[in-house]
Amino acid sequence: MSRGRRPGDSGTREAILAAASEAFGTQGYGATSVRAVARAAGVDPALVLHFFGSKDGLFTAALDLPVDPATVVHALLAEGVDGLGERILRTFLDVWDGTPGQGPMLAMLRSAVSHEDSAAMLRRLLSGVIFGPLATGAGADRPDLRAGLLASQLVGLAMTRYVLRVEPVASASADVLAPLLGPTLQRYLTGPLP
Amino acid sequence: MSRGRRPGDSGTREAILAAASEAFGTQGYGATSVRAVARAAGVDPALVLHFFGSKDGLFTAALDLPVDPATVVHALLAEGVDGLGERILRTFLDVWDGTPGQGPMLAMLRSAVSHEDSAAMLRRLLSGVIFGPLATGAGADRPDLRAGLLASQLVGLAMTRYVLRVEPVASASADVLAPLLGPTLQRYLTGPLP
Repeated sequence: MSRGRRPGDSGTREAILAAASEAFGTQGYGATSVRAVARAAGVDPALVLHFFGSKDGLFTAALDLPVDPATVVHALLAEGVDGLGERILRTFLDVWDGTPGQGPMLAMLRSAVSHEDSAAMLRRLLSGVIFGPLATGAGADRPDLRAGLLASQLVGLAMTRYVLRVEPVASASADVLAPLLGPTLQRYLTGPLP
Repeated sequence: MSRGRRPGDSGTREAILAAASEAFGTQGYGATSVRAVARAAGVDPALVLHFFGSKDGLFTAALDLPVDPATVVHALLAEGVDGLGERILRTFLDVWDGTPGQGPMLAMLRSAVSHEDSAAMLRRLLSGVIFGPLATGAGADRPDLRAGLLASQLVGLAMTRYVLRVEPVASASADVLAPLLGPTLQRYLTGPLP
């Protein structure tokens, strides 16, 4: 990610990420500011924004996910709204199945059920970074409600497939699950609301 | 629940439940037998079956849920398959919203994400006691897969509404959620599978 900047940049970037990780983890999403992270890392707030673009950019970078959610959301929406539900489902399975032990996603889910700070971070990730932008990008009314519905199905899939390992959902391939769950996600994204 | 039996019955029943709770909690669902619970409680296995009907009956009684899942499943199916998805959703919300702090259901969910024994118990409850019988009772093909899909949506609703409190799903009324999620459950129950 250093894109040819001077050698010191990568150390600085790591220092900002470590400070952000500490701040989001102990104080939660809401109480953490770019300014406070910059202060803790001993850098100017402008440098934090230079590296990470925004508080959400800093937040998702600090989560150390196997993919950048904003990039994935952008790519999904770039292909249009037709079939978006099934593409979301396949991308979800690609990322989760492709990460040994489901990595930081599963850790975040486990932590969120017992720690309110972690729950607030996951809530922010789901609503603000992943499903909110997906629902808004799909262009239908009430994106907030649609984002919550998307989250309910996909958090539930994560729970039943990776945590509870309810069969046959736990072992089913993407080709089995996509036509089952894809239409649900599509209806939540673009279907008429009562 | 003593239905006019002699006074000693309620103490015996409690002793069996305490032994069952201990056995399921420490050894998990699979490794616990009616015979072992009877031995731990100092009673004959026939008496355990007299009180609880089956291992699953003993298991759900030991969970101390606010409703008996088998009774609820039976009542839901008795009204037929039309509108079953929406009735399941409304019953789910009645039970969860009507239990202060979501009681043992939320405790079970929290425990299941970090303890494999608890995960196995919740898996058994979801597959064997609630959604398996619902899907089987609805009469369509592949009840095992349908039960897993039902679980994925409703575990996800529990997570987003009660654990992560993703708005507006967390505060939405049953009248808002039923027409949104009911059709999903109905499709999982009776829709054509690919």
